[in-house]
Amino acid sequence: MDFNTFFRDQLDSLRNEGRYRIFAELERQAGSFPRAGHYVDGERSGTVTIWCSNDYLGMGQHPAVMEAMHEAIDRCGAGAGGTRNISGTTHYHVLLEQELADLHGKEAALLFTSGYVSNWAALGTLASKIPNCVVLSDAGNHASMIEGIRHSRAERHIFAHNDPEDLDRKLSALDPRLPKLVAFESVYSMDGDISPIAEICDVAEAHGAMTYLDEVHAVGLYGPRGGGIAEREGLMDRLTVIEGTLGKAFGVVGGYIAASTDLCDFVRSFASGFIFTTSLPPAVTAGALASIRHLKASTAERLRHQDRVAVVRRRLEAAGIPVLENPSHIVPVMVRDPVLCKEISDRLLDHYGIYVQPINYPTVARRTERLRITPSPLHTDADIDHLVNALTEIWAEIGLKRAA
Amino acid sequence: MDFNTFFRDQLDSLRNEGRYRIFAELERQAGSFPRAGHYVDGERSGTVTIWCSNDYLGMGQHPAVMEAMHEAIDRCGAGAGGTRNISGTTHYHVLLEQELADLHGKEAALLFTSGYVSNWAALGTLASKIPNCVVLSDAGNHASMIEGIRHSRAERHIFAHNDPEDLDRKLSALDPRLPKLVAFESVYSMDGDISPIAEICDVAEAHGAMTYLDEVHAVGLYGPRGGGIAEREGLMDRLTVIEGTLGKAFGVVGGYIAASTDLCDFVRSFASGFIFTTSLPPAVTAGALASIRHLKASTAERLRHQDRVAVVRRRLEAAGIPVLENPSHIVPVMVRDPVLCKEISDRLLDHYGIYVQPINYPTVARRTERLRITPSPLHTDADIDHLVNALTEIWAEIGLKRAA
Repeated sequence: MDFNTFFRDQLDSLRNEGRYRIFAELERQAGSFPRAGHYVDGERSGTVTIWCSNDYLGMGQHPAVMEAMHEAIDRCGAGAGGTRNISGTTHYHVLLEQELADLHGKEAALLFTSGYVSNWAALGTLASKIPNCVVLSDAGNHASMIEGIRHSRAERHIFAHNDPEDLDRKLSALDPRLPKLVAFESVYSMDGDISPIAEICDVAEAHGAMTYLDEVHAVGLYGPRGGGIAEREGLMDRLTVIEGTLGKAFGVVGGYIAASTDLCDFVRSFASGFIFTTSLPPAVTAGALASIRHLKASTAERLRHQDRVAVVRRRLEAAGIPVLENPSHIVPVMVRDPVLCKEISDRLLDHYGIYVQPINYPTVARRTERLRITPSPLHTDADIDHLVNALTEIWAEIGLKRAA
Repeated sequence: MDFNTFFRDQLDSLRNEGRYRIFAELERQAGSFPRAGHYVDGERSGTVTIWCSNDYLGMGQHPAVMEAMHEAIDRCGAGAGGTRNISGTTHYHVLLEQELADLHGKEAALLFTSGYVSNWAALGTLASKIPNCVVLSDAGNHASMIEGIRHSRAERHIFAHNDPEDLDRKLSALDPRLPKLVAFESVYSMDGDISPIAEICDVAEAHGAMTYLDEVHAVGLYGPRGGGIAEREGLMDRLTVIEGTLGKAFGVVGGYIAASTDLCDFVRSFASGFIFTTSLPPAVTAGALASIRHLKASTAERLRHQDRVAVVRRRLEAAGIPVLENPSHIVPVMVRDPVLCKEISDRLLDHYGIYVQPINYPTVARRTERLRITPSPLHTDADIDHLVNALTEIWAEIGLKRAA
């Protein structure tokens, strides 16, 4: 077999579908978020305004976070030097796990190298090691949860997205004696819709099922201390596991679960993806610790964030740009065509210095291609004017349909 | 089902077997590697000498690495702010991939959040997406490779460890028309043995199979520019994929593959574990870039490292401490009992300020439990004296058998 021909053919078919990914090469500029340098062919070509970052609050450039990272590098150096078990557990890791347990009102927390790995490893371990475990998975779950469940090879049933009644039907059809795990998210990243956590917990509890909630697009952003949607709704104690990330609102990188001491210790002791990997650098854990502590105490970023989101949404709607309605901070501008989506993104970048990556299949379903706009507390009124004007002009130039 | 009782029972059985893991809580001290602060119950209790770090060369505290990280934080902030596709590709990522491609003499390279993820995602994607791919996997392969191959659900055959003849037999038994992938390592981390790369390539080429070589315990350490064992032996061009880590000899964190442009682009475009995860922080990529550049030009660290390894090995052998023979930098002191292994490790820590984590099942096979000692260029003669004396005393106290 000619492997390279096979690879090229597969890549060509992506290109033909208009969904071959070209990564924008950027250089974030601490102190002037959401501005970044833009590189073309390895040369710096100008400055752009980022409108699609998951550094939702700009904490990635917060002085307290940067200072904590600088200090940890000076104190401890670059990397952790080993797996958690073999010389890679630093004092920062222990403090960060305590801080995360406290954030979610749980006994314990466990760090992973990323949110992806936390979902993959925790779900993969729980579902494979609990004998005869059956997983009930929301139809909209993230790739990392799907892959973790798939990896476990446990029996799996998909319930209709955000539908507690369908979950109840699916659970009722199962042998009541079997152990069950219900896996879902709070804020779904691409549509920005929010799950009915209380109702899903009601159903899960009625069937004696564990609950596993992914809050990666909510931690830091919702709840009085940034504990997420479950904190905002007073539901944290009803969830068996809350999973989160340090790479989005907290502005650094890494993932975690918060749960009972026994559950965390179980995953710690049996998850291949936790055990056999170098632990996060001290500077990363120190930065995340500073970020979480700041957002536990400060609501200014969350309030300003919600305000900016509301303004962007209102202005786009007024301009007739088709925005998907939702109750979160994610503003999906629906294009529903991969080639047009890329075309709009290219025009924004080339003519307006605005960077919004096109979101195509498989990240979203075909014919739901979109520009996923994520306003931050640091986008100014002028930034918003510029974005809305740019999209209005492009909509007219290309002759796209306007919303009612 | 009472989940917590299940978790506790499973943890109790680990304790009863003597293989429940207790993580040492450390604080690495930049500027005085291999020294670290040691914490007990959250309080700092003293200073220890680390003898089991995978920061093999102490690059985690190299001034050039730390300086590059500081600079990147000041320039770009803490995190990358998104996945590689959605705002998370910085100029540093692009430069680092170019540097890695050059290191291994390949057209391209692709970064992952960890070495574990690079193996899991690259092998999982290649083996699942290449139609009817059959994987030939060395019996000693790392957990991350095993999990990636398992995740792919491709047909898999395990060949005897470091045995090209067995590989040939296994390949000969397969339909010649099927695409095949041979996955193996250069330096095996626990025994420290080195694979016969040329012979394995001979066999693979004769059968038209791709080759995938994990060099995580070799990059930075072997070869004129730190390209690994394949560089040292002039074999890099014979390997389809070379996989490595930024978290061991390079002293930071992260993983990568180096291969043809098409192969890297294919994995970039189809690997869930690459696509759906926040990219490495700019400071991490900047630090790794500085480390690789330094070790490409400087051989002083490698020479001193090999010297220290030889001295430790000679001294331990002279003292009758049973060391596993091998041609690499890893010095396994064989204890062959999980409870004794932990006991020796505890005594080293409590009475001598020496930290060597016990390595028990499932990291190694049962009855091969060991202390895995990793000398670095920064361990002094006095450090070696202290280690050898401590082990000699403990061997006598416990009444352990000496090597001939």
